[in-house]
Amino acid sequence: MPFTPDKNRYTALGLMSGTSMDAIEVALVHFTGRGMDTRVEFAGHLAASYPPALKSQLLMAVAGNLDIPALVRLDKAVAEAFAGAALYYLQEHKLTADSIDFIGSHGQTIGHWPGPAPSGEYQVTASCQLGDGSVIAARTGILTVCDFRGADMAAGGQGAPLVPYFDYLLYRHQHRGRVLLNLGGIANITVLPAQTPLTGVIGFDTGPANCLSDALAVRLSGGKLNCDEGGKQALAGHFSGPLLSALLQHPFLAQPPPKSVDRSVFGEVLANYMMTHRGAFSDADLLATAAEFTVESIVQSLEKFVFPEHMIEELIVSGGGVHNGYLMRGLQNRLPGTAISLADGYGIPSQAKEAVAFAFLAHQTLAGQPGNLPSVTGARQPVILGKICPALPAPPAAAQTAENKNSTI
Amino acid sequence: MPFTPDKNRYTALGLMSGTSMDAIEVALVHFTGRGMDTRVEFAGHLAASYPPALKSQLLMAVAGNLDIPALVRLDKAVAEAFAGAALYYLQEHKLTADSIDFIGSHGQTIGHWPGPAPSGEYQVTASCQLGDGSVIAARTGILTVCDFRGADMAAGGQGAPLVPYFDYLLYRHQHRGRVLLNLGGIANITVLPAQTPLTGVIGFDTGPANCLSDALAVRLSGGKLNCDEGGKQALAGHFSGPLLSALLQHPFLAQPPPKSVDRSVFGEVLANYMMTHRGAFSDADLLATAAEFTVESIVQSLEKFVFPEHMIEELIVSGGGVHNGYLMRGLQNRLPGTAISLADGYGIPSQAKEAVAFAFLAHQTLAGQPGNLPSVTGARQPVILGKICPALPAPPAAAQTAENKNSTI
Repeated sequence: MPFTPDKNRYTALGLMSGTSMDAIEVALVHFTGRGMDTRVEFAGHLAASYPPALKSQLLMAVAGNLDIPALVRLDKAVAEAFAGAALYYLQEHKLTADSIDFIGSHGQTIGHWPGPAPSGEYQVTASCQLGDGSVIAARTGILTVCDFRGADMAAGGQGAPLVPYFDYLLYRHQHRGRVLLNLGGIANITVLPAQTPLTGVIGFDTGPANCLSDALAVRLSGGKLNCDEGGKQALAGHFSGPLLSALLQHPFLAQPPPKSVDRSVFGEVLANYMMTHRGAFSDADLLATAAEFTVESIVQSLEKFVFPEHMIEELIVSGGGVHNGYLMRGLQNRLPGTAISLADGYGIPSQAKEAVAFAFLAHQTLAGQPGNLPSVTGARQPVILGKICPALPAPPAAAQTAENKNSTI
Repeated sequence: MPFTPDKNRYTALGLMSGTSMDAIEVALVHFTGRGMDTRVEFAGHLAASYPPALKSQLLMAVAGNLDIPALVRLDKAVAEAFAGAALYYLQEHKLTADSIDFIGSHGQTIGHWPGPAPSGEYQVTASCQLGDGSVIAARTGILTVCDFRGADMAAGGQGAPLVPYFDYLLYRHQHRGRVLLNLGGIANITVLPAQTPLTGVIGFDTGPANCLSDALAVRLSGGKLNCDEGGKQALAGHFSGPLLSALLQHPFLAQPPPKSVDRSVFGEVLANYMMTHRGAFSDADLLATAAEFTVESIVQSLEKFVFPEHMIEELIVSGGGVHNGYLMRGLQNRLPGTAISLADGYGIPSQAKEAVAFAFLAHQTLAGQPGNLPSVTGARQPVILGKICPALPAPPAAAQTAENKNSTI
């Protein structure tokens, strides 16, 4: 274990890939202190592409089209890619594995099922993040904490969102109420009222961010595009009122927090629905409708569950969706009294924020501190998250090099 | 972490279920020292039945008939059953969770694929043990080490067998060469030549133990029986020479160690083969042939890979197969110069031996010590095995009780 009484400053890598599978984000972070006294120093990041064959396996897993041996193998292959990204970061920055105390790896979510469902005699909740920490620890020679969601779910929580503790630590303000909004495949918010204690933080998934628009873009382009880049097509269209009204009837939107949702609920399924009900609407109109649905589901979530109880002055946005002009313009139009800014202005690049957050959560785990917030996830209590995978004792450099030949960045 | 410099004696539970899925074995063990200086005190055990609906889900998983969400949920449900078995042990013996320092849980193997196979751009090996350690830690309030095979496989090993270090510690003899034979779904051996150093230990899977006979018994009885209890039917039959010769051509038998194998290689597939080639042979004859194949594959493995290099005086047998009269008689007939005895005579009940071994491996992990033997698994180096799942900070007793209502023992 890297935590020793006489050491106070730790250096870590955070590894993250969101449900959009845009890239494997690697962040280098230094930590001093622990819990609410943690000082976080962001020190750099990079985004590594998924090797294409691996990504297509992942999309098959999300669609449920992999058998059990292929799924279990994919857990290892994702770990190889994550480890490859970490080693690439170290190499680019001339850092040795010895200089890194630990890795916090979120892994790749391929499914999230927070609603209790039967399995044998039991009612269970589950979430699946691929990327075996034992493989990452072996390839890098660095102790790795992985699989953060299981412990919160075991304590009755949704297992998500897990970033709010980190958001509270870094983004809360003494006099201004803030909401952090992450626009990944799914949109989620962390609500930080001014002067709230940690136990007063709330946060939840609001619905789709990019997942519906991405699924539509794939269909409309016959697979040539995987997203509406920059929201340009949506900006050229007009949303359909009737289709939007139908989408806004989705029961998830009315459900009070705590809540979290699998990308599949808002991705392919609703894209199919829109395609079969498109009538005379153009491609651009459909993409505008999807983007408008994202904006509207975020705004209605705020109006229903946040604004009535909390004074919010600022909305700080992160995630791939910040590059979507339709979403950013739509949010500003619908929230004229709220100052909207990008997370980049607060010390950590928007793209790296979640990777930094999972490095922080690993730091909490190794310090024996909880990482979840029961007010956010609905867990019965704060719990220590994750699984700790020890590194090999002193990996021989030769073996490590041979291993990495397979990695594609 | 339970390991502190001023504590020397630790109390642990080991949890294990073999590929036969006979029962969840729970063993209570005390440890003093670490590595080769470990003193193991076996303190008790019980066998808990799998709840029937859970077991049928597991059999579907083994057959590949579960979708991804059902598989991920099953990982949690198996953990609930393992945790229920551990809590039942504590309750029966009036022990509190506080008195247990850690749990070592092997989990339930549903597939083992040690041969490299492609996944995306990578060549990977994999093995799947269900029973999420985070759930076990949450339900019991006890730190849990799980998923032992991944780290060895990440280091290039077969991930199996992992019991040989433990066998060396407890069963080696200064003047007598010993082989430990475990008769589970698969048969595996640990070879302990007299006066061998730890690095001289070898061990490998020899082929089927009960898995072929079990698969045949299910078929021949139309699902009414799940095994040939005590080998009684086999003892009433005569093996078929031609069928046995065909079975002995299986390429796994000729493959030199290190080697390990998935139960599916010798279970359903060979049972199907035998059924379609049974000719005039009776049910009893088929079961005799399966049992003879088990005996012969063990004996030939010893004759081919062990006896030429090592002097072996004793064979110590454990696992459910010790109750099969055909197997035990067959081994004695075929190995007249070897003293055959049951593991029960050496301090640990045969049935509990693997559960004790995984408590030992968890002890090694928490002590920062390797648990695999490269001479056995083929790994490039000794590695620290497993994933460490921290317990909740002080679980509230009320919540824990509510949780366990679901558990069926």
